[in-house]
Amino acid sequence: MRELLRKVGSGEASVEQALAELKTLPFEDLGFAKLDHHRSVRKGFPEVIFGQGKTPEQVAKLAEAVLRRSDQLLITRVEVAAYDAVKVVVPDAVFEPTARTVVVDRRKKVTKKPGVAVVCAGTADLPVALEACVTAEAMGSEVRQLFDVGVAGLHRLLANMETLQSAKVLVVVAGMDGVLPSVVGGLVEAPVIAVPTSVGYGSSFEGLAALLTMMNSCAPGVGVVNIDNGFGGGYLAATINKSVK
Amino acid sequence: MRELLRKVGSGEASVEQALAELKTLPFEDLGFAKLDHHRSVRKGFPEVIFGQGKTPEQVAKLAEAVLRRSDQLLITRVEVAAYDAVKVVVPDAVFEPTARTVVVDRRKKVTKKPGVAVVCAGTADLPVALEACVTAEAMGSEVRQLFDVGVAGLHRLLANMETLQSAKVLVVVAGMDGVLPSVVGGLVEAPVIAVPTSVGYGSSFEGLAALLTMMNSCAPGVGVVNIDNGFGGGYLAATINKSVK
Amino acid sequence: MRELLRKVGSGEASVEQALAELKTLPFEDLGFAKLDHHRSVRKGFPEVIFGQGKTPEQVAKLAEAVLRRSDQLLITRVEVAAYDAVKVVVPDAVFEPTARTVVVDRRKKVTKKPGVAVVCAGTADLPVALEACVTAEAMGSEVRQLFDVGVAGLHRLLANMETLQSAKVLVVVAGMDGVLPSVVGGLVEAPVIAVPTSVGYGSSFEGLAALLTMMNSCAPGVGVVNIDNGFGGGYLAATINKSVK
Amino acid sequence: MRELLRKVGSGEASVEQALAELKTLPFEDLGFAKLDHHRSVRKGFPEVIFGQGKTPEQVAKLAEAVLRRSDQLLITRVEVAAYDAVKVVVPDAVFEPTARTVVVDRRKKVTKKPGVAVVCAGTADLPVALEACVTAEAMGSEVRQLFDVGVAGLHRLLANMETLQSAKVLVVVAGMDGVLPSVVGGLVEAPVIAVPTSVGYGSSFEGLAALLTMMNSCAPGVGVVNIDNGFGGGYLAATINKSVK
Amino acid sequence: MRELLRKVGSGEASVEQALAELKTLPFEDLGFAKLDHHRSVRKGFPEVIFGQGKTPEQVAKLAEAVLRRSDQLLITRVEVAAYDAVKVVVPDAVFEPTARTVVVDRRKKVTKKPGVAVVCAGTADLPVALEACVTAEAMGSEVRQLFDVGVAGLHRLLANMETLQSAKVLVVVAGMDGVLPSVVGGLVEAPVIAVPTSVGYGSSFEGLAALLTMMNSCAPGVGVVNIDNGFGGGYLAATINKSVK
Amino acid sequence: MRELLRKVGSGEASVEQALAELKTLPFEDLGFAKLDHHRSVRKGFPEVIFGQGKTPEQVAKLAEAVLRRSDQLLITRVEVAAYDAVKVVVPDAVFEPTARTVVVDRRKKVTKKPGVAVVCAGTADLPVALEACVTAEAMGSEVRQLFDVGVAGLHRLLANMETLQSAKVLVVVAGMDGVLPSVVGGLVEAPVIAVPTSVGYGSSFEGLAALLTMMNSCAPGVGVVNIDNGFGGGYLAATINKSVK
Amino acid sequence: MRELLRKVGSGEASVEQALAELKTLPFEDLGFAKLDHHRSVRKGFPEVIFGQGKTPEQVAKLAEAVLRRSDQLLITRVEVAAYDAVKVVVPDAVFEPTARTVVVDRRKKVTKKPGVAVVCAGTADLPVALEACVTAEAMGSEVRQLFDVGVAGLHRLLANMETLQSAKVLVVVAGMDGVLPSVVGGLVEAPVIAVPTSVGYGSSFEGLAALLTMMNSCAPGVGVVNIDNGFGGGYLAATINKSVK
Amino acid sequence: MRELLRKVGSGEASVEQALAELKTLPFEDLGFAKLDHHRSVRKGFPEVIFGQGKTPEQVAKLAEAVLRRSDQLLITRVEVAAYDAVKVVVPDAVFEPTARTVVVDRRKKVTKKPGVAVVCAGTADLPVALEACVTAEAMGSEVRQLFDVGVAGLHRLLANMETLQSAKVLVVVAGMDGVLPSVVGGLVEAPVIAVPTSVGYGSSFEGLAALLTMMNSCAPGVGVVNIDNGFGGGYLAATINKSVK
Repeated sequence: MRELLRKVGSGEASVEQALAELKTLPFEDLGFAKLDHHRSVRKGFPEVIFGQGKTPEQVAKLAEAVLRRSDQLLITRVEVAAYDAVKVVVPDAVFEPTARTVVVDRRKKVTKKPGVAVVCAGTADLPVALEACVTAEAMGSEVRQLFDVGVAGLHRLLANMETLQSAKVLVVVAGMDGVLPSVVGGLVEAPVIAVPTSVGYGSSFEGLAALLTMMNSCAPGVGVVNIDNGFGGGYLAATINKSVK
Repeated sequence: MRELLRKVGSGEASVEQALAELKTLPFEDLGFAKLDHHRSVRKGFPEVIFGQGKTPEQVAKLAEAVLRRSDQLLITRVEVAAYDAVKVVVPDAVFEPTARTVVVDRRKKVTKKPGVAVVCAGTADLPVALEACVTAEAMGSEVRQLFDVGVAGLHRLLANMETLQSAKVLVVVAGMDGVLPSVVGGLVEAPVIAVPTSVGYGSSFEGLAALLTMMNSCAPGVGVVNIDNGFGGGYLAATINKSVK
Repeated sequence: MRELLRKVGSGEASVEQALAELKTLPFEDLGFAKLDHHRSVRKGFPEVIFGQGKTPEQVAKLAEAVLRRSDQLLITRVEVAAYDAVKVVVPDAVFEPTARTVVVDRRKKVTKKPGVAVVCAGTADLPVALEACVTAEAMGSEVRQLFDVGVAGLHRLLANMETLQSAKVLVVVAGMDGVLPSVVGGLVEAPVIAVPTSVGYGSSFEGLAALLTMMNSCAPGVGVVNIDNGFGGGYLAATINKSVK
Repeated sequence: MRELLRKVGSGEASVEQALAELKTLPFEDLGFAKLDHHRSVRKGFPEVIFGQGKTPEQVAKLAEAVLRRSDQLLITRVEVAAYDAVKVVVPDAVFEPTARTVVVDRRKKVTKKPGVAVVCAGTADLPVALEACVTAEAMGSEVRQLFDVGVAGLHRLLANMETLQSAKVLVVVAGMDGVLPSVVGGLVEAPVIAVPTSVGYGSSFEGLAALLTMMNSCAPGVGVVNIDNGFGGGYLAATINKSVK
Repeated sequence: MRELLRKVGSGEASVEQALAELKTLPFEDLGFAKLDHHRSVRKGFPEVIFGQGKTPEQVAKLAEAVLRRSDQLLITRVEVAAYDAVKVVVPDAVFEPTARTVVVDRRKKVTKKPGVAVVCAGTADLPVALEACVTAEAMGSEVRQLFDVGVAGLHRLLANMETLQSAKVLVVVAGMDGVLPSVVGGLVEAPVIAVPTSVGYGSSFEGLAALLTMMNSCAPGVGVVNIDNGFGGGYLAATINKSVK
Repeated sequence: MRELLRKVGSGEASVEQALAELKTLPFEDLGFAKLDHHRSVRKGFPEVIFGQGKTPEQVAKLAEAVLRRSDQLLITRVEVAAYDAVKVVVPDAVFEPTARTVVVDRRKKVTKKPGVAVVCAGTADLPVALEACVTAEAMGSEVRQLFDVGVAGLHRLLANMETLQSAKVLVVVAGMDGVLPSVVGGLVEAPVIAVPTSVGYGSSFEGLAALLTMMNSCAPGVGVVNIDNGFGGGYLAATINKSVK
Repeated sequence: MRELLRKVGSGEASVEQALAELKTLPFEDLGFAKLDHHRSVRKGFPEVIFGQGKTPEQVAKLAEAVLRRSDQLLITRVEVAAYDAVKVVVPDAVFEPTARTVVVDRRKKVTKKPGVAVVCAGTADLPVALEACVTAEAMGSEVRQLFDVGVAGLHRLLANMETLQSAKVLVVVAGMDGVLPSVVGGLVEAPVIAVPTSVGYGSSFEGLAALLTMMNSCAPGVGVVNIDNGFGGGYLAATINKSVK
Repeated sequence: MRELLRKVGSGEASVEQALAELKTLPFEDLGFAKLDHHRSVRKGFPEVIFGQGKTPEQVAKLAEAVLRRSDQLLITRVEVAAYDAVKVVVPDAVFEPTARTVVVDRRKKVTKKPGVAVVCAGTADLPVALEACVTAEAMGSEVRQLFDVGVAGLHRLLANMETLQSAKVLVVVAGMDGVLPSVVGGLVEAPVIAVPTSVGYGSSFEGLAALLTMMNSCAPGVGVVNIDNGFGGGYLAATINKSVK
C-alpha cells in the first residue's frame, strides 16, 4: 500500500489507476470464487483449497488457478471424485487418500526443516493426524510421526520422550476423552497444538468432549484448533517451526 | 374487517353470512393445507411455498392453487422430484437448481428496484446466497452479487467498498466463523441482514457458531435470520428495499 | 480514501503525511480506548458508548471525548454511578433509569421522523423496550409505544392493528416463549426487528428459548438481534426508518 | 394386592403360591421382552408397542402376544417391513402409513366419545398430528382435525374458534417456532397438550426450539410432551377426555 | 364477537361504536401494563399476576385493578416487599411465604372440588409443590398432598397407592434425576402433570436434567410444564379437574 | 414382604393389619419429609441427609430422627448455620468445615477396613475430595489420601504408584480438564470412581468439561458420578470396598 | 520397574539395555497402531480392540497380534465385514451379532464367577445390554440377565427382587428417560453401574437425557459410563466382581 | 532418568535410594498441595500459582515455597486479600490489580526479548489482555500493546499494520462476537493465539460465542485458549517467542 501511495505521489499512477489496481490485482474472480493470489505474499503460502462443499469442477478450476501463479498447491478434504477432476488438469497432483489431501510441489530441491512432531492417541485419529502431517510438510517442515500413544497405555508415550522433547513444536491429535495434549503438555517445553477429533460415540458429542478437555488443559503452553482440523494444526505448527531457531 | 362490519350494519350481509364469509374467504382448504390467499393483501406477496417436508404432489397442488389467484409464485427448498411434479401443471415454472427455487412471474413489464446487495463469504455458501437473490428478485428488487469475499483475504472486500456502500440494504451470508457481517456492518450505514450458514465442520455445530457470532456482532445495524435461511434474508431485504426512498 | 489518494496525487500531501494521517485522524486514543470519531461519517451516528464493564471514570472520559467532536451522545447500560460521573463533566446529560441510558442532543430544532413502533409482550420487558425507544429517538425517529400486548390476551394486540400496520418498521420485544414477533410478523407488511429478552425462568435459559423462537419464526420479514439488545433493535429500526419514503 | 393378601389370609393360597403368582401373572416373558398384560387393568389400555428399534419379527410376536389377552392393539412408529410381518399373523391389522401406526379393534359396537381436537401448524407436521389422532381414537375418543393453521396466517385459526372452544381437550402440534400452542392456549379454557415437532432447519435444532417455546408458554393450561411424540399427545388427551363430563 | 356482530346488525351499535368497543372494553391500560379483564370470561379465571420482575408498586396496582372487576386474585413469585405493598391496598390478601403466593377470595361459600393430588420427591421441592397446591385451590380444587416420596425409598410411594390411584389428576414435582413422574405414571390411569424443579447441583443444570427425564418418560399419560413452574402444574391440573365427572 | 405374607397366612396378622403395617412401618413422616428408616436394612447405611436446600431447623429435625433409630449419622452440604442447629440437639456431632459434613458414630470399637484411595488433581478440589473421604470413612472404610497430583506434573503421580496400585477401589477427583481419572485408570486394575468438580472457568462450564472427559475415558474400568458429588464417589467406593476380599 | 532397576544395579543389564528394553518391550508397533501387550499384566485382561473406525484389515491384524501373546481376545463394535476378515486368521473367533462382539478364549476349564446381573429397560436396549454381558463373561464373570423391566410396568421389576438383591454388582441399561438405575439403586445394596443408551427420539438427544438422569440419581451407589458403552459397564462390573468375596 | 539409571548401574546409588529419590525429589508436599519444583527444568519456568479457589494462606505458602527454589514467581487470578497475605512473606511482590497478577523477579539484568504483540478488541477486555502481557513479560518477552481495535472501526486496526506485521507472535483478545482474531489472522503471517473473553451479554453465553467464532476461524494459523485465559495466551506466546530466530 505504501508502494501504491508512492506511485500516486510520484505521478507513476493516477488516482483512478491506483483505485483500479487496488480492485483488480490481488485476487482472481472465477465467478463462483475469488482466489486470493496475494495470500502467498501476506501469509507465506498460497491459498489452500478447502475441498468440502465444492463440486469437483470447482475444485479443479481453483487448482488450475492457484498453479497459474504459484508452484505449490494444497487441497484438503478431497474426495476421490474431486481428485479425479483435478488430475485431468494437474497431472502431477499427488493424492493421499487417508489424509484426503492433494499436493503439488513444483519447486526444485526443497529441503524440509526438522522440528514438527505429530502425535496421535488412536488408530481412528489417523486421517486427522495425516492431514496435519501433509500440511506441515507442504509448508516446508519435516515431520516426525508418533501414532497410537494414548494414555490408556502410558508407557507407549513415555518410551518416546526423546521424540517428544526434541520437537520444536508438537501437534497432538486425540478424540474421545482428548487427554493426550494435557499429558504431553506436562512433559515438554515446546508449544503444543491440540487437535480434537470427532472419534468417539455417545457423550463425545462428535468431538465436543475432546475439545473442552483440551480448552481446559491444566498444562500451560497448549493452543487448540477446531475438531478434526488436522490442516489447522499442521499449518500453525509449520508457521511456528518456520521462524524457530 | 371494518368493511365486514359495515356490510352487517347496512343490512348488506346478515350476521350468519358475515360469520360464514369470515370462515371461508381468505384461505383455501386443500385438505393437507390451508393456503393463505389473503397474504398478498396483508404482506404484499403471495404465500411462499416451503418445499422441504412436503411430497412432490403436495408441492404441485399448492403451486397450482397459488397461481389460481396470483400471477406470482415462489417455492423454496425444492428438490428435482418436486420440480418435475410442478412443471407438469405449471409449464412456465423456472427452476434454479443451486438455489433450489422455483419461480413464476406472469406479470408484464416488471421493473426491478435497485438497492439490495447479497454478499457471501465462501463458495460453499452459494446455495444460501442464491436463495436470497432469487427471493429478493421475485419480490421486485434488483440484486448485486458479491461472492467469496471472506475476511481471510480482506482486500477482496475492501476493493468492493463502492458496491457495499451504495446498497440500500445488504444480505451478508457466511458459515464457519461467521465474521463477515460484523466487518461489513462496520463499513456501511445501511441495514445488514446476516444469514449464518451450516457450512463448516466440528465446532461450527451446523451453523451455531456463525449464528452466535452474528448475534453478538459489535457492529450496530445488524439483524439475523435462521441458519441457511437465504429466503428469510432475501425477503427481509426486499421488504426494506421496497419502502426505501 | 479516494480523497486521500487525490491529495497525494496532487502533491497536497506527501506519502509520509498520508500514512500519518491515515494512522492518527479517524480515532482518538484515550489509553484504555480508541474512540472512533470517524463513525458518524461512516455510520451516520457517533460511536455509542456501551457502559457495561467500564468504570465510571472510563465512561465519563469517553462521554467527554465524543462530545468534543459531536453534538450528540448516547450511552447504554449505564449504572447510576456512571451517570453520576458523567453529569460532572456533561451537565446536560439526560438519564433514563429504566432504560439505563444517557442521552445528549445539542442540535437545534430537531424534527423526529415518524415510522418506528416499539411493541413489547410484558411489563418485565420494559427496560429492553425503553432502551430501543431511547436509541431510535436519539437517532432521529419518532417512536410509538405499544406495551404489554402478549399473545395470552390476543385481543389487546388485535385492538391495536392500526398502530401495527401504520408503522414503517417495528421493534418487537418479548421474553419467555418469545412468540409475539411471529404473530406480529404475520399481521404486518413492514420489517419486524425481534428482540428476545432474558425475562423468564427455568427452561427460558436466560432468553435462549425466546431467541430460538424468533430465529425460527414462520412469519417472513423478521430479523433478530441479541438477547436484551434493545439498543440493537432501536438502532436497526432507526437505520431502516431513516431511508424510508 | 389386597386380593392376594385376602387369599393368603383365608387359606385359598399358600405363601409360596402367592409369591409365585406375584412373579408370573401380570406379564409374559417373550425372551427379548416382558409384555405387561396387567397394563390394561392399571392404565385402561393394553401396552402400546413402540415399533422403532425393534425387528419386524419382534414387532409381530409382540402384536400376537397382546392380542392373545386383549381385543385391542396399537403399534406406533411402524415401518412397512414391520407391518408386513404383522399382517401375516394379524390379518385384520390396519396400517396408516402417514401416521406410521397399526391398529386392531375387535370390540363390537364401539362408540367414540367426542371432545378431542387435534390442531397442527403446517403440512409437514401431519405425521405427528395423525399419530395423535389415531392414538386418541384407538383409546375411544372422537377427534376433530384442524390442520395447517399456523400463526403466519392468523385468520385461518380465528375462523375456527368454534372448533377450538368446543373441544374438551386440545392437542396442538407445531414445529419451527412452535408458537401455535401459546396462541391457542390464550383463546381456550380447555387443557392444551402441546407437541413440538422436529420440522424445521438450522436453529430449530431438530425440534428443540419448538420444545422450549412451548415450555415457556405465557398462556396457562399448557402441558408439553416430547418432540414428535404424537402418540403421547393423543394418549394424554384421550386420558383426559375419558374422565370429562 | 357474534354478539358484537348481532348488535351492529340490529342497529343497537354503529360500526364505529363496535370498533371502539373492541378496542377499549376487554382490557385496562395501566401504563406499564394492559390488564386482561376478559380473561376470566375466556379462561374461567382472572389474569394471574406474575410477580417476578415487577416492582412492588406495579404488583400492588395490578392487584387493585384485578379486584376492581373480580372477587378473586392470585399473585405468584411474590417477594415480601411486594406483599407489603399489596396489603396496604388489599388488606385481606393472604401471603404464603414458602409458596411465594398471595391469594384473595371474596366469594361466599365456595366448595372445593376434590380430585387433585400434588406429589413431590424431596423436601427441597416444597416451594414448587406448594405453589401448585395454592394455585389449584385458588381455582376451585381440593388438593391432597403427598410430599417427600422420592424413588430412593420406593416403599414410601407404594404405601400411598390409594392416594395416587384415587386422584383424578396428579401434579408430580421432582428435581435432581426427575424420575418420580415416570414411576407414578406407570402406576396410575389418571393424567400426570410433571413439574421439574431446579433442585440439584452439577449436571442437573438448574433443572434441565429433570426436565429431559420427564420429557422422555416411558410411561404414557404424562405432560410436562416449565422448570419450577408450580403455578403451571396447578393451573393445568385444576383446569382438567374442573371438567372431570 | 415374605415375612408379612407369612404372618397373614398364619393368622398372626389380619389383612388390614398387614396393609396398615406396610403403610406405616418403614418410614417416619416429619411433615416436611418422610424419613426412610428402612434404608439401613436395605442399603446397609441409614438415610444420608442432603443439607443443601433445607432450613437449619429441617436439618436438625432430620438429624434427631435418624439418630432415634440408628447410631450413625451423616449430613452432607452442611452450612455452619445448619451445623449450629444440629449441635443443639446432637451435641456429639462432628463438623468438618472444608468437606461441609457432619458425622456421628456412636458405635463402639469400630475398625475401618482398608482399601479406598481418594486422589485429587488440585488444591481447589479439596472440598469434594474430603467429602468423599468423610463419606467412605463413615461407611466403614479406611481411606488413603493422595492430593494435588494433577498430570501437569506427572512425576508426582508416578511417584505414588504403590498407593495407587495397592488400593481396592479409587476415587479420583478432578476439575478443569478432568484428565486424572483417565491416567489413573490406565495404571491400575482396581475400579476407579471418577468425580468431576466445578473447579475451573470459561469453557469448563461449571464442571461439564471434566464430566465429559471422564465419560469418554479411554481407560476401561472407570465409572462417573455427578459434578462435585464427593459424597457419591465415597459412597460407591465404600460400597465396593465392603464386599471386597 | 523395580525389577528393571534391580537388573541394572546387579549388572545383569547395562543402562543402554535397560533404556532399550523400556522402549521396546511392553508394546508392539503395527505401524497404524501400538498394541499394549503390557495391559494384561497391568489391568488383568489383554487390550480390548475397539472395532469402530478401524478397517477390517486393521481389526484382523490387531486380533492376530493380541493372540500372539494372549489366549484371550475381545473385539467390540465389530461389523460383519470386520468379523469376516478376523475369522480368516482366527478361525475360532466367535461372533455375537446383536452385541457386535468377537470373542476368543483358548484357556482350558475356565469357571466363571457368579455375581454380575445385567438389567435393561426395553427391547431396543438389547445390543448394549448384551455387549455388557459378553464383556463381563469374557473377563470371567457369570452373568444373570434381566431384560425389559422398565418402570412403566414396575411389577416386572419387583417380581425379580431376588435376582436384583443377590447380585454382587449390577449393570443397569436404559434409554429414553433412563430412570431404571435410580429405581434399582433404591432397592439394592450392591454397586450399580448405569449405562445410558441412545434409544429414544426427540429430546432424548441421542442418550443425553438418560445420561443426565443417571448422573443425578437420588439413589446412592450408582456410577455411570458413557452412552451405549455396554463394554464399559460390563468391564467395570467384572472388575468389581473379580475382587468380591 | 538416564542419570538415575547410570548411578544405579555404577553403584553410586542403591535401588532403594533410587526409588526414594524418585519419590521425594522433584516436588514438595505442602499438605494441601504438591509443588512441582521440577517444572522449571521441564518447562523452562517455575510452576505458576493459580490463585482462584485457594485461600490467601494457601497462596502465600505456595509463593514462599516457589521462591525457596526459584528467583521468579507468577501468581494469577489474585484477589487483594491474597496479595495482602503474600506481601507479608514476600515483600518485593508486585501486584497489578487490573491483570490480577503478582510477579516477583529477583534475577539481575534481565533483557526482555521483543516479538510479542497483545491486541484486544474493547476496553472491557483489558483485564484478560493485561494478564497476557504480564505473563509473557514474566517469561522474558517484551510486549507491544494494541488495545481497543475492534472491527466495528476497522481503520483503527489497519492503521497499526506495522505493529501487527512486525510481531513474531500475536495474542488477540476479544469478547462478544470474537471476530478480531479472524481478521488479524488474515493480515499477518505470524502465529496468532486467540483468547476469547466472557465480555458480552445474552447469547454471548459467557464467552462461548467468541470461543466458537475463534475455533472456526477461516484464517489459518490461529490457535485458541480457554475463555478469559489471558495467562494461557501469554504463556503460549512467550513459549513460541523464546525459540524464534
